Amino acid sequence: MTVLRSFSEHAGTLLKGLWWRAYSRQHLGADVLAGVVVAVLVLPQSLAYALLAGLPPQAGLYVSILPVLAYALVGSSMTQAVGPVAITAIVTFSVLSPIAVPGSAQYVSMAAALALMSGLMVLAMGLLRLGFLASLLSRPVVSGFISGSAWLILISQMKLMLGVSAPGVGAWGQLSATVAHLPQAHLPTVALAAVSVGVLVATRSALAPLLVRWGLARGPADMVVRLMPLAVVVLSTVAVVAWELDTRHGVAVVGQIKQGLPEMGMLLPGLSELGLLVVPALILAFIGTVQNIAMAQALAIKRRERVNPNQELVGLGLSNVVASVAGGMPVGGGLSRTAINVAAGAQTPLASVVAAFAMLALVWAGTAGFARIPLPVLAASIVVAAVNMVDVAEFRRAWAYDRADALAWLGTALGVLVLGLQGGIVLGIALSLATLLYRASTPHIAVVGRVAGTEHFRNVERHGVETLPGVLFLRIDESIFFGNLRAIEARLMAELAKLAEPRAVVLIMSAVNRVDLTGLEALTDLQRDLSARGVVLHVAEVKGPVQDRMQGTALLAGLEGRLHLSTNAAYVALQDRG
Amino acid sequence: MTVLRSFSEHAGTLLKGLWWRAYSRQHLGADVLAGVVVAVLVLPQSLAYALLAGLPPQAGLYVSILPVLAYALVGSSMTQAVGPVAITAIVTFSVLSPIAVPGSAQYVSMAAALALMSGLMVLAMGLLRLGFLASLLSRPVVSGFISGSAWLILISQMKLMLGVSAPGVGAWGQLSATVAHLPQAHLPTVALAAVSVGVLVATRSALAPLLVRWGLARGPADMVVRLMPLAVVVLSTVAVVAWELDTRHGVAVVGQIKQGLPEMGMLLPGLSELGLLVVPALILAFIGTVQNIAMAQALAIKRRERVNPNQELVGLGLSNVVASVAGGMPVGGGLSRTAINVAAGAQTPLASVVAAFAMLALVWAGTAGFARIPLPVLAASIVVAAVNMVDVAEFRRAWAYDRADALAWLGTALGVLVLGLQGGIVLGIALSLATLLYRASTPHIAVVGRVAGTEHFRNVERHGVETLPGVLFLRIDESIFFGNLRAIEARLMAELAKLAEPRAVVLIMSAVNRVDLTGLEALTDLQRDLSARGVVLHVAEVKGPVQDRMQGTALLAGLEGRLHLSTNAAYVALQDRG
Repeated sequence: MTVLRSFSEHAGTLLKGLWWRAYSRQHLGADVLAGVVVAVLVLPQSLAYALLAGLPPQAGLYVSILPVLAYALVGSSMTQAVGPVAITAIVTFSVLSPIAVPGSAQYVSMAAALALMSGLMVLAMGLLRLGFLASLLSRPVVSGFISGSAWLILISQMKLMLGVSAPGVGAWGQLSATVAHLPQAHLPTVALAAVSVGVLVATRSALAPLLVRWGLARGPADMVVRLMPLAVVVLSTVAVVAWELDTRHGVAVVGQIKQGLPEMGMLLPGLSELGLLVVPALILAFIGTVQNIAMAQALAIKRRERVNPNQELVGLGLSNVVASVAGGMPVGGGLSRTAINVAAGAQTPLASVVAAFAMLALVWAGTAGFARIPLPVLAASIVVAAVNMVDVAEFRRAWAYDRADALAWLGTALGVLVLGLQGGIVLGIALSLATLLYRASTPHIAVVGRVAGTEHFRNVERHGVETLPGVLFLRIDESIFFGNLRAIEARLMAELAKLAEPRAVVLIMSAVNRVDLTGLEALTDLQRDLSARGVVLHVAEVKGPVQDRMQGTALLAGLEGRLHLSTNAAYVALQDRG
Repeated sequence: MTVLRSFSEHAGTLLKGLWWRAYSRQHLGADVLAGVVVAVLVLPQSLAYALLAGLPPQAGLYVSILPVLAYALVGSSMTQAVGPVAITAIVTFSVLSPIAVPGSAQYVSMAAALALMSGLMVLAMGLLRLGFLASLLSRPVVSGFISGSAWLILISQMKLMLGVSAPGVGAWGQLSATVAHLPQAHLPTVALAAVSVGVLVATRSALAPLLVRWGLARGPADMVVRLMPLAVVVLSTVAVVAWELDTRHGVAVVGQIKQGLPEMGMLLPGLSELGLLVVPALILAFIGTVQNIAMAQALAIKRRERVNPNQELVGLGLSNVVASVAGGMPVGGGLSRTAINVAAGAQTPLASVVAAFAMLALVWAGTAGFARIPLPVLAASIVVAAVNMVDVAEFRRAWAYDRADALAWLGTALGVLVLGLQGGIVLGIALSLATLLYRASTPHIAVVGRVAGTEHFRNVERHGVETLPGVLFLRIDESIFFGNLRAIEARLMAELAKLAEPRAVVLIMSAVNRVDLTGLEALTDLQRDLSARGVVLHVAEVKGPVQDRMQGTALLAGLEGRLHLSTNAAYVALQDRG
């Protein structure tokens, strides 16, 4: 409840609200320019992600219009751009391909229904202020999930880059089928893909520093780098047309794209098919939510803005609901899309509004020119983007800081590969919770003594301290709950056994934030147990909320007079009696 | 690992070990008497629980011989008695009745296989020192589970007490079928059951005080009360024989029992049937483990002894393995069986050894006399025992102390009724974990100030304290992890907004026992974020293990010089600068 309350309290300050009311004229030029640049640059990847999702290429263009507009007006991030993105595309393909044939009319209508259902779910989550649910996943798990998904995308694109038809079920099936078809690789296709990958990788890492050395400013140099994928697509398409690579040499191309403006509306699948989509929609909603919020927050930190997770969900949900009738493909917050937006100088969501209208203009002008874009080049650009989604840096940080977090990363990433996206996300949640439980059930417990001449108590193993004969001062650095009682009791008994003539145990509870009922009853038993051995139980530094809760329990009644405000008070009392 | 290590370290002291080597002659008389008394008293309930499990009545007698002996020699509790018990009986019936017809040869062989498989699992858990897994369940959940099972037992016995045949699937199915058959209730059966219940309840609550008032000592008085179920069975059987209640009035009786000593050995079911039993065996192993350890510990506390969970599992597992070939019914640690043992004066496991031989003698002498024990009377004794398993006191304690624990009790108990035993146990684990996660994700956070003239810092809402203008002292009373970052950040920002000219935030981490990678990265972001607003982040009282882990991270590097050993040091430093 506290979370919910704190969110609603701050809704007022956190809400982006009506950004256009407070729009500052000085941003206008930058926003218009950024919008046009984004529309042009994201065009090839919009086609590519639609194909990745198993949908007709124009779907990617259509959902770059109205859904983008919807998010711009409602979402909470100032510069995040939504649209057809890699994660939602691969999730769409993963959940739909087992129940419908990709590219079929049934598949198309189910994709639209999926966008609608998951959009409504996300919208409901936002309106019900359930944005905090996204914190069910730790950063390493989210990062591992995105990395695993990137590997899935890589595997799915290999056959396009090899020019082979290699149907296989699951990641391993596809991978082994592709490897088995290696000898049949189509050479012109492989050459085109290899050159594209080479150019993209080379320009990505080396071009910007080179341009800067040649006297270009950092900003424009970055922009040139971001232009390269478009340049590669344009040049390769020119090559296809010039040398008839498609008709004469068998290089696969995008093919005929439906002309003209998108029709609004959708064909709802039957009720039984909608039933099949409930779980997939839930998965898509959850993944989309987590990814979107994580990205919006990362971006807000960089730009020193604040993000409201619930507002963010309302924007994402509404955007998907609109996408279901205006394009029919689920959308999400895009990493590269947003990066292009920021790099192009966008200052406010007006940039996205402009981008939506620019895309509308491009679609209106005609999409015939896109028909001969070579597929291996689009696949190459997806692959290069996917490689950048693999976040090995997070894994390394986790490995250095906390092995359990590193294992959670690895487990989730491998889980996505071996069990699929659904299995991976479930494994990730399970790993998050297991780590939490394991940590809490192996608490840090320190035997402490008094630093001479002070009232401070420190670990006897780390500091030279004074102790009282026959008295055990034990600091429990964890909330006491059903899962760690055995560990606490075992440690207490072991330390007690080391004392020659034990007469008292002082439990220092300064780091005990909660004691559950099982813990309370176990402490009560412990007190009785110790007392039977002639050892007196004292407690010190019990926190206010913990003590409030203990009022009237058998434990507190039995402790009368032996509950000390500070460890030093307990020390002094026991010293006098000793 | 700490848990495992501490267990093995103390194995030497905790092990009951070879109790007979250190056997004290003075206990001999008490143990022999207790053994004989237990054998006689548990005889009717052994028949009843075998019938409850869907097995022939003699199975309950057979598993009261060798399995009891096995546990007596290996188990860790001095006075716990194993044998056919209510919980394992109802679990056996619940998991087997959907896959085989109760009473059929296939059912009998599957029950034996179930005992073998779950026994091997429990044995392996004990040998692998996995006894700590039993702590995956909190006390309220275990209590709720046993209470829910007791309701299931009540429902299952109602048709026997009404003398109707009311087949129904699940608890509700059986209940509604029984209610629907109420008009057909068999009057002599109902009368016999009602009188039995009345006598048992009345003697249970009123007899002992009455006997004490008449001058009997408390011990013998309790023994007389424990004799009552046997007396009721004997008297009702005499009534059946005298008035031919079974042959002439249609009261159901136990029926012919196989004569002579049990044959050793078992008929293993086929491989495919064994496959069906894996999950049921796991469930039985888990439930048996949790119940057995919980009971052994409760008993050990009362008797000021210590229990070794792993040794306990070895005893329980071995006992079930033996039961699979010597009777063919899963066994467990019995509440009433143990209570009888203790009340009869048992001092060591020798009492159980004697009880096993006494039962052997009874079976040898002949079981023909048991054939005309009336079923409604056995059902009545089971029902009275089951009512005592419903632990409403624990629910009340939980309600008073912590609503979340109370809801976990209620959820588990209702889960057992509505979803069945398996569903109930899964729901219980889920509730335990959800409670844990919810508590950790809504941390207690206090704004503190200095108690004038001291170095102590206390909650500004609870105490009159000094503060520094523009400085926020925030104590976080919870480990920082992915689940509570939003709550912490929201609170921090809200408190900061209350300050006129914020210049510094001091995070007091005395109760922060761990910071996971997500938390570390969020703190790093927070530091950057605050610094951009002109607010300096300080931290104080970081625990040793937390600080060790932070060595070399970006957070610690950025905090240089602003990590204070005590809150007071931070206060003094900020006062000087203020």
